[in-house]
Amino acid sequence: MSSTYGNKIKISVFGESHGGGIGVVIDGLPAGETVSMDEILMQMARRAPGKDKTATPRKESDTPRVLSGMLGDTLTGAPLCAVIENTNTRSGDYGNLLACPRPGHSDYTAYVKYHAANDIRGGGHFSGRITAPLVFAGAVCRQLLAKKGIQIAAHIAQIGSVKDERFDPVDIPAELVDRLSRSSFALIDTGKEAPMRDEVEAARLDLDSIGGAIECAVTGLPVGVGEPMFDGVEGVIAKAVFGVPAIKGIEFGSGFDLSAMRGSQANDTFRYQEGKVVTTTNHCGGILGGITNGMPLIFRAAVKPTPSIAQEQQTVDLQKQENATLAIKGRHDPCIVPRAVPVIEAVTAIALLDLL
Amino acid sequence: MSSTYGNKIKISVFGESHGGGIGVVIDGLPAGETVSMDEILMQMARRAPGKDKTATPRKESDTPRVLSGMLGDTLTGAPLCAVIENTNTRSGDYGNLLACPRPGHSDYTAYVKYHAANDIRGGGHFSGRITAPLVFAGAVCRQLLAKKGIQIAAHIAQIGSVKDERFDPVDIPAELVDRLSRSSFALIDTGKEAPMRDEVEAARLDLDSIGGAIECAVTGLPVGVGEPMFDGVEGVIAKAVFGVPAIKGIEFGSGFDLSAMRGSQANDTFRYQEGKVVTTTNHCGGILGGITNGMPLIFRAAVKPTPSIAQEQQTVDLQKQENATLAIKGRHDPCIVPRAVPVIEAVTAIALLDLL
Amino acid sequence: MSSTYGNKIKISVFGESHGGGIGVVIDGLPAGETVSMDEILMQMARRAPGKDKTATPRKESDTPRVLSGMLGDTLTGAPLCAVIENTNTRSGDYGNLLACPRPGHSDYTAYVKYHAANDIRGGGHFSGRITAPLVFAGAVCRQLLAKKGIQIAAHIAQIGSVKDERFDPVDIPAELVDRLSRSSFALIDTGKEAPMRDEVEAARLDLDSIGGAIECAVTGLPVGVGEPMFDGVEGVIAKAVFGVPAIKGIEFGSGFDLSAMRGSQANDTFRYQEGKVVTTTNHCGGILGGITNGMPLIFRAAVKPTPSIAQEQQTVDLQKQENATLAIKGRHDPCIVPRAVPVIEAVTAIALLDLL
Amino acid sequence: MSSTYGNKIKISVFGESHGGGIGVVIDGLPAGETVSMDEILMQMARRAPGKDKTATPRKESDTPRVLSGMLGDTLTGAPLCAVIENTNTRSGDYGNLLACPRPGHSDYTAYVKYHAANDIRGGGHFSGRITAPLVFAGAVCRQLLAKKGIQIAAHIAQIGSVKDERFDPVDIPAELVDRLSRSSFALIDTGKEAPMRDEVEAARLDLDSIGGAIECAVTGLPVGVGEPMFDGVEGVIAKAVFGVPAIKGIEFGSGFDLSAMRGSQANDTFRYQEGKVVTTTNHCGGILGGITNGMPLIFRAAVKPTPSIAQEQQTVDLQKQENATLAIKGRHDPCIVPRAVPVIEAVTAIALLDLL
Repeated sequence: MSSTYGNKIKISVFGESHGGGIGVVIDGLPAGETVSMDEILMQMARRAPGKDKTATPRKESDTPRVLSGMLGDTLTGAPLCAVIENTNTRSGDYGNLLACPRPGHSDYTAYVKYHAANDIRGGGHFSGRITAPLVFAGAVCRQLLAKKGIQIAAHIAQIGSVKDERFDPVDIPAELVDRLSRSSFALIDTGKEAPMRDEVEAARLDLDSIGGAIECAVTGLPVGVGEPMFDGVEGVIAKAVFGVPAIKGIEFGSGFDLSAMRGSQANDTFRYQEGKVVTTTNHCGGILGGITNGMPLIFRAAVKPTPSIAQEQQTVDLQKQENATLAIKGRHDPCIVPRAVPVIEAVTAIALLDLL
Repeated sequence: MSSTYGNKIKISVFGESHGGGIGVVIDGLPAGETVSMDEILMQMARRAPGKDKTATPRKESDTPRVLSGMLGDTLTGAPLCAVIENTNTRSGDYGNLLACPRPGHSDYTAYVKYHAANDIRGGGHFSGRITAPLVFAGAVCRQLLAKKGIQIAAHIAQIGSVKDERFDPVDIPAELVDRLSRSSFALIDTGKEAPMRDEVEAARLDLDSIGGAIECAVTGLPVGVGEPMFDGVEGVIAKAVFGVPAIKGIEFGSGFDLSAMRGSQANDTFRYQEGKVVTTTNHCGGILGGITNGMPLIFRAAVKPTPSIAQEQQTVDLQKQENATLAIKGRHDPCIVPRAVPVIEAVTAIALLDLL
Repeated sequence: MSSTYGNKIKISVFGESHGGGIGVVIDGLPAGETVSMDEILMQMARRAPGKDKTATPRKESDTPRVLSGMLGDTLTGAPLCAVIENTNTRSGDYGNLLACPRPGHSDYTAYVKYHAANDIRGGGHFSGRITAPLVFAGAVCRQLLAKKGIQIAAHIAQIGSVKDERFDPVDIPAELVDRLSRSSFALIDTGKEAPMRDEVEAARLDLDSIGGAIECAVTGLPVGVGEPMFDGVEGVIAKAVFGVPAIKGIEFGSGFDLSAMRGSQANDTFRYQEGKVVTTTNHCGGILGGITNGMPLIFRAAVKPTPSIAQEQQTVDLQKQENATLAIKGRHDPCIVPRAVPVIEAVTAIALLDLL
Repeated sequence: MSSTYGNKIKISVFGESHGGGIGVVIDGLPAGETVSMDEILMQMARRAPGKDKTATPRKESDTPRVLSGMLGDTLTGAPLCAVIENTNTRSGDYGNLLACPRPGHSDYTAYVKYHAANDIRGGGHFSGRITAPLVFAGAVCRQLLAKKGIQIAAHIAQIGSVKDERFDPVDIPAELVDRLSRSSFALIDTGKEAPMRDEVEAARLDLDSIGGAIECAVTGLPVGVGEPMFDGVEGVIAKAVFGVPAIKGIEFGSGFDLSAMRGSQANDTFRYQEGKVVTTTNHCGGILGGITNGMPLIFRAAVKPTPSIAQEQQTVDLQKQENATLAIKGRHDPCIVPRAVPVIEAVTAIALLDLL
């Protein structure tokens, strides 16, 4: 597998959802910096399940234990390892998945690639649960970014047919960034929470699930982060974001809307504002030639609906080699978008710290 | 900069649009395989400019010279270096760009990052011209993939308001793949060529440019290519595709449309068909858990309009530190989408060969 | 820091000698292979301290706990994480090291690089104790190599003035390899154990330490492992071996003796033997042009004396910025060579599995 | 193959000795720095053959042409590509090598790994000639290091039975460094030139070749370069040095002599000298815990005798599958040590610039 990421900051994620524990090793952190464990736990709580009806009723303590790399709240410069024990597991729920792969899930491809050895219980290493260590790592990285004035905030851009407002791409208030980056149901227009929850509840009652989208902004980036071509900011962030399960698309700035635009419209005009070069629009999402231009970095990510649904589904039986019908029991989120918001922020933080 | 890509197959691109030459080193190719230079030249001709009014009138011979790695038409296993001399250059056209960055272009970010040292003439290393070596490298890689039965074809999905048909995601005929992969204005519905050219011509007459989108399909992939998490197929291809200038978004399968879907709709049902596991739909774009599932791999990429337009534009003068007006002379494509099609195919070939 | 190694098999080591725990994440292992935990524990026992007077009296349980990547004795293909808890620590012993760096140790360079943040207690991440996870990882890798017929064995080539016999470079019996690879005081000529122990005991009684050398052989390698130039077998193994603390030199085959040889003597003559190409001598150590030639791979590594000695030593006081005198208390091996033997075997196994 | 090196500074070497040309791409160089082409040519002249009887009579012009990455004498920040055309080749000399591998050379391992595809003419990619691009790259890197006060100098430590003096490990005069780094037969004690040349001439008259050793020193390094464990300075330099053909051993500081030392002797005592921490001896070669300590970095490398000798040698015929006799014609150095000195300096410069 390839559960490592990064060049200067190297992240190595391990764990299967129903194994002994999950965790992350972060190599390359600067010695002597302080990190608040409270901030880390706050971020992990945003991702944790069981908070309400949009999420799986499975409760995890998810308390990370730091084995190395910190002395008190200070980074020692040695690799930081954090482990989260797996306690609340019900493997019995996953009995027949090995034979009958869940549509839309990685059961089939993992079966072919890793054979019977794949730990199918709870999705194995493919489980959304391994995003917990990513949030831990991101929570460390974002604190280091914050000391340089760089802030990251994402929100639920869309769930089903309900859309939140979008960021004003040239003016993102610090208060908004702060609020979103602490919210567990992050919205610019909080009035959209009720209709979004309705959409999720309707899917749940239909034994179904629902997809969505997340918009993420980074403020305070200096000009000049990123490299042209293969280490351009778009490519580096995309690789990190596609490392999050269920993400199927990413667009920067005006993204796919640029397909129908003219250059005269898409080109962001440069202006001097208080002695600083700014752009009056931000169709490029803060990135020109793979390099940040000092404006907010903005991207959107598409989140597919949770593939594990309670409805009976058609699939195949790989042992009998015939078509089959599957009813998934287990406990699953009808909509993972709210919990995916801090995960997207986390991998963005990891990617940017690696680039800086 | 970071102009290298890959782990097993390592690509190192060099050259500035108006320097002595451009080229690529490909390390890790298998010894003893034969490669057709005619196929390579055919692919490079698809990207070459000057063919018609959609493209820049600048004519480049673009004939690559292989310095190493091939004996006749056989790969030796040593790094393959191909060089394309730069002959037809008119640097005078780029006189005032160093002071006045073109909106939408990398002039400003490159200026801040690389200072006056950046070779601004013709866009330097950021120029679209350095996609020529990428097409060379891709043309080698796709021939090696073809021997394993893997074919890559892309088409112009959209230019401005005109859209081509989309691939049938579960049934892509070999004839279509073959035709597209040799076409210089690749369309599924060739009836869309005229309205697309009209769109481009209208932009050109307005001294403007126009954006678009490209859809790419890969057929014949085995089940099991890619790794979960950070070396998932989505992330690896995205990093390669965002290495192409002007790409601002990528989506796999149904991509952003998944945001509004239910799981019962988005999950691709598994069925046995002639003893083989297939899916009846392909919303996942042939990738589950970062790993190919044996169905066609399909993605779409958003292409922003060429930032270099002949209209007068507002910008800044970085030397005088004041607002300024800019009129770009030079020679520029009003629409780069047709020429970007073989480039997208090329980087996809490079990414997949690296994964296999 | 950089505690990661490898391309296909990625090793990430973490832990400080007196932190919460130490361990390793191994990414890229093949799914479905079985691994014997008894074999792993046997290898770890060879490295464990406290067995006799050559080693530190500190006793560690060193029992690894596997958090992920194994189901029973089968590799799942997911990253394997093993953690060893730190239990028996006496941090008080290390009080004044932060101010007064131990000569020959990394205290000073770590102080400058990581400042006060470095966890000096027990040597922090620089401690020899973090070789325990390396032995764990190597014990997994060597079992996978053994299934391909590849065996690794090292022995104490030298301690102080006492030298063991050297391997017959063209004929290394399987029985010898087997015996050495399980021995905790590995010698070809076991009659050298007594004089070597005498040498160590003499150093210990003088409150001193003693250096040595280790010779390592790999049998059963196919022809063709390794790549010319920067991924040649010599370079890849050297990078792994220099990752082990206290190693200051490595030579392959006849190594530095080649400096005084003629080509007619150093060239290993090729011959057919039972239909197979062999060499009649093995001055090249089984590697030609960075690639294995099918003969035993043989190298020697120089081990410096343990820098922590009980004698009073001259050093500096970095806080008072003046010369100072230091007496190290703690518990330290007078000779680490016997315990380093399985570590050298381990990193060799990791390096070779990564190359294969 | 793997002809790439580095993380921040990425070197990609290409070319076969008798192909169209050889060269190097250097990615990651800082924009705006100036580099003297005269200095580069001076370094390349040191490595060039045909100067005297120690070297092959083959004359190469070896004039590099810079295709990209420089404007005048200024680095643009884009990848620098330099090409050296191959002009003076006599492939006919290498007729029967494909069938009958030269003892001590990579013919056999390359044959097995790359089959008939390997370009055997002149050793293909394995040829010593591809060290010319390494010297080019090193000549760029060392100029950048020199601006930080870091100097690199190596000398012929040994040829056959004749040894040069060794560096005073704690005091290496700038004049000596300067003289050696420009010399084409670099010796501390120039009185050793005559006996060394006699040794080489004696080997040549016997149709034989002779090995040697090179000692290399780096002065002006700050404290704190390198990372513990796998990116320790020893490992990083070793990987680069073993990338040079014919190198079979490397030792840092007192190296293998440490095997017989006591800790009290090997530990380098710290002292304050003019307000700076120094060591009174330098057995560690300037590296503690993988990190530079501010003292001169010193290592020695073993060079095997040129395997191509004019004497008739026993080998095998891989086509007839029987033992055979081989007489190599071609033109070959009886001793490559003098020409290898600037190559060792070059790869050291590349490795250190990558680490900094």
